[in-house]
Amino acid sequence: MVSDQKEVSNGLERRIKVVEILDPEAKTSCRILISRKAFIVGLASKVWKFLRKAWDIGVDDPKKVIHGLKVGMALTLVSLFYYMTPLYDVVGQVAALWEIMTVVVVFENTVGATLSKCFNRICGTFLAGFLAVGVQWVASKSGHTIEPIINGVAVFLLASLATFSRFIPSVKAWFDYGAMIFVLTFSLVSISGFRVAEMAVTVLVVARQRLFTIVIGTVLCIIISMLVCPIWAGQDLHTLIFCNIDKLADSLEGCVAKYFKHGDDLDDGDKECQKKLQGYKCVLSSKATEDSLANFATWEPAHGRFNFRHPWKQYIKIGESMRSCAYCIDALNGCINSENQPSEYVKMHISNVCLKVSFNSSDVIRELAWTIKTMKKSSNIDFLVGDMNKAVQELQFNLNALPKLFNPPSKPEAAETPENKTTEQLQPASKAVVTKMPIMDIIPLVTLTSLLIEIVTRINGIVDAVEELAGLAEFKPASNDKCKKDDDQLNNNCLPDQQKDKDTMNKVFPLV
Amino acid sequence: MVSDQKEVSNGLERRIKVVEILDPEAKTSCRILISRKAFIVGLASKVWKFLRKAWDIGVDDPKKVIHGLKVGMALTLVSLFYYMTPLYDVVGQVAALWEIMTVVVVFENTVGATLSKCFNRICGTFLAGFLAVGVQWVASKSGHTIEPIINGVAVFLLASLATFSRFIPSVKAWFDYGAMIFVLTFSLVSISGFRVAEMAVTVLVVARQRLFTIVIGTVLCIIISMLVCPIWAGQDLHTLIFCNIDKLADSLEGCVAKYFKHGDDLDDGDKECQKKLQGYKCVLSSKATEDSLANFATWEPAHGRFNFRHPWKQYIKIGESMRSCAYCIDALNGCINSENQPSEYVKMHISNVCLKVSFNSSDVIRELAWTIKTMKKSSNIDFLVGDMNKAVQELQFNLNALPKLFNPPSKPEAAETPENKTTEQLQPASKAVVTKMPIMDIIPLVTLTSLLIEIVTRINGIVDAVEELAGLAEFKPASNDKCKKDDDQLNNNCLPDQQKDKDTMNKVFPLV
Repeated sequence: MVSDQKEVSNGLERRIKVVEILDPEAKTSCRILISRKAFIVGLASKVWKFLRKAWDIGVDDPKKVIHGLKVGMALTLVSLFYYMTPLYDVVGQVAALWEIMTVVVVFENTVGATLSKCFNRICGTFLAGFLAVGVQWVASKSGHTIEPIINGVAVFLLASLATFSRFIPSVKAWFDYGAMIFVLTFSLVSISGFRVAEMAVTVLVVARQRLFTIVIGTVLCIIISMLVCPIWAGQDLHTLIFCNIDKLADSLEGCVAKYFKHGDDLDDGDKECQKKLQGYKCVLSSKATEDSLANFATWEPAHGRFNFRHPWKQYIKIGESMRSCAYCIDALNGCINSENQPSEYVKMHISNVCLKVSFNSSDVIRELAWTIKTMKKSSNIDFLVGDMNKAVQELQFNLNALPKLFNPPSKPEAAETPENKTTEQLQPASKAVVTKMPIMDIIPLVTLTSLLIEIVTRINGIVDAVEELAGLAEFKPASNDKCKKDDDQLNNNCLPDQQKDKDTMNKVFPLV
Repeated sequence: MVSDQKEVSNGLERRIKVVEILDPEAKTSCRILISRKAFIVGLASKVWKFLRKAWDIGVDDPKKVIHGLKVGMALTLVSLFYYMTPLYDVVGQVAALWEIMTVVVVFENTVGATLSKCFNRICGTFLAGFLAVGVQWVASKSGHTIEPIINGVAVFLLASLATFSRFIPSVKAWFDYGAMIFVLTFSLVSISGFRVAEMAVTVLVVARQRLFTIVIGTVLCIIISMLVCPIWAGQDLHTLIFCNIDKLADSLEGCVAKYFKHGDDLDDGDKECQKKLQGYKCVLSSKATEDSLANFATWEPAHGRFNFRHPWKQYIKIGESMRSCAYCIDALNGCINSENQPSEYVKMHISNVCLKVSFNSSDVIRELAWTIKTMKKSSNIDFLVGDMNKAVQELQFNLNALPKLFNPPSKPEAAETPENKTTEQLQPASKAVVTKMPIMDIIPLVTLTSLLIEIVTRINGIVDAVEELAGLAEFKPASNDKCKKDDDQLNNNCLPDQQKDKDTMNKVFPLV
């Protein structure tokens, strides 16, 4: 679109130049024409881009579109109350405002978030209503002059306290919205009470009417959000965690495979593969999402395969252990992409066992993803962890044999010229004080293996966290392999894609 | 407090047992008494804990208390409108609601957030008001039966679209609140318009009145938030970034120093020092805060040393580069705390140069913190970066000398028995296939140095990001050292503490 825009304005520029030569007075009007046309084309291209993006978002995640439709539906239903005359007479105009406001403000994307906001709204309104009525009663007994002063002081003190309380972590996590509603309702009731009293209507009637409309609004929201295509925070968290674990496996496997293959082929190659290599970055950046989903999930009733008291907090622990592993993968990635690289000869010596470690670790990680996904205790996990640890031992054994390479039989690494320069490239400040020696060759390899070993240690941390989850949530043991495959076909969420992609993966990383 | 509670209930239990022996019938009432008393004590201790926490939060960051008081003040001022009869007659009861709601909802902690919400509220209300009036006009022309249908369809469509648009990243970042207000206002005006028209009052009057009260509310919020002890998102972001950079330096320095000293002394030692070692975790977890502060800072006018178009987005880049460095420090920390450790003899060979690298890198990082803090281009940074790179070279040179250690003169590491076991400890699965060889000894060291080198590479990334900031924000060059010290005393924010702590640091890490 941007190039279209440029072409249009370039074409116009040329035509105007011709016109200017023929008729110099047409210059100004032409200039205005060109700038207007360019502006309109630019605007149109921006709007088009925006719409395309919106469309893509909707196609990628239809849940978002559904949420929009649900909010529209709830609001239309609320409107019915006001188009139908008898109901309107009962609740009145101010109440209409409260009900619409409740729906707009309370209706959230997930059931848990909606429930949490509904609870907060009702509790905050109740508490503030009672307090305000009490304060109002005291104030009304103390004469018309002091009344506004008592009300004003009460509003100042309670609003300040409630606003400050929102900074306390436990209040923030559970009652942030409730505290805001408390301040709002308290101020409103205590102020309008002052006026309404003048009009000889008791504050209690106002408070009761508002509570009534808020309850109608929240009940409507809860019903629609739970019955019409419900989006559960718990289910979302569950899916996020096992998809992220899977991404970790892809990244680790891809990273090591890339190192021992010719890195350049892969760099320029498949975009899909690059995306997989960078998958661990999703793990790094999903902390905030995990925290809020886990918080909302605790509000949700039993749904799908999850009980009411499903250990959602344990998912946060799993997330933490995954992130700790992802930090190491990032460091590994950095070392792999650094300019200081060993010769192919040295690489060769250790490549098979490194690939074995990365392959076995990925298997462990994938098994964990499977365990979480199917909510069944894996019978293979102990074997897989054993294999992984054995591979690490083998790796260490191979490392011990490295000293022999310090004087390799025919010194084949001398032939690999482009990579031998790297030491000097790394330190441009001095003029090659460091002469090329074999030890410089094994440093990247030793680092790689150490990081792999550290990654394996951290994978054991994930294994522990997942096993704790399996214990807390009372996962049943998986019966046999057939059941595993059945489950994979049943839950068509995240892993099937990975499975499909595995063939591509094997093409891209043939060493694996 | 928990122990108090236990003591009380234990004491009661004993007394009740005595009573029970003397009079068995008193059993039930005593049991009730004990459970009640324990419950009250438990509740009191919980409330006490909560209050203490709230108090600590207020003492740690008085800004939060000030924010609470400001909200209280704004609400009390709004109340004035309603206690003063002439004003009340002008704006009416419904308007009172709108004004209080505006203050409660719009008043945020920082000036930027408040401005952003005010802008969103006004724009959302305007746009929705105009659209609703238009739709209302069309509907009113089409007869009383079709009118509610047109209104209902319009509410459904626009509410769905606006709610969906909140999922589009650019809308979410800038107009999330505005979209919500749009839905709210549109629904309200179009519904109440239907009724109000019956009462022969034009929709325009309602819409104008609401806009008027919202403008009063927002103007009040803006004035109070900008004039009474303003809290600027920009200033907060600036402080967060240079404090975090400083924490990175402390962590890196402390980590390496701990490794080359006897680790155990430090573990059991100073808590303050442990906190410093873990400082990099603040960097890891502050992404969300940085993003939101940078977003709000762009809304803020010029304040303090910041112009209106200060390059706030660059702070996010600096944050990213810091996090990338912190990932490596986390990996380093993992390797340092792993069970596989070299003997002291091998450590000794390389400790000085490693400490030098960490010390020089920390100097570079601290200089960057100083650059950001004082907003002055450092004249030393090039020298410091040069020193750091030289130290890295020296490290690599020393590594080359390591092969000599493979057959050390008197094999002193054989004496260090406890640490030599570690290889077997790491792989409990097999029975010590790996025999202890010197290469196992240098692996952790090589890893340490490689990670140090990688960290230095990433520090260069931070240097670049900070220099870009200095260019974009047109930092002036620092004149001389005296100016640096003056500035340190002037801006008593974060570094002075570090400076004070440096003496403690040198006591704790005497090798540094």
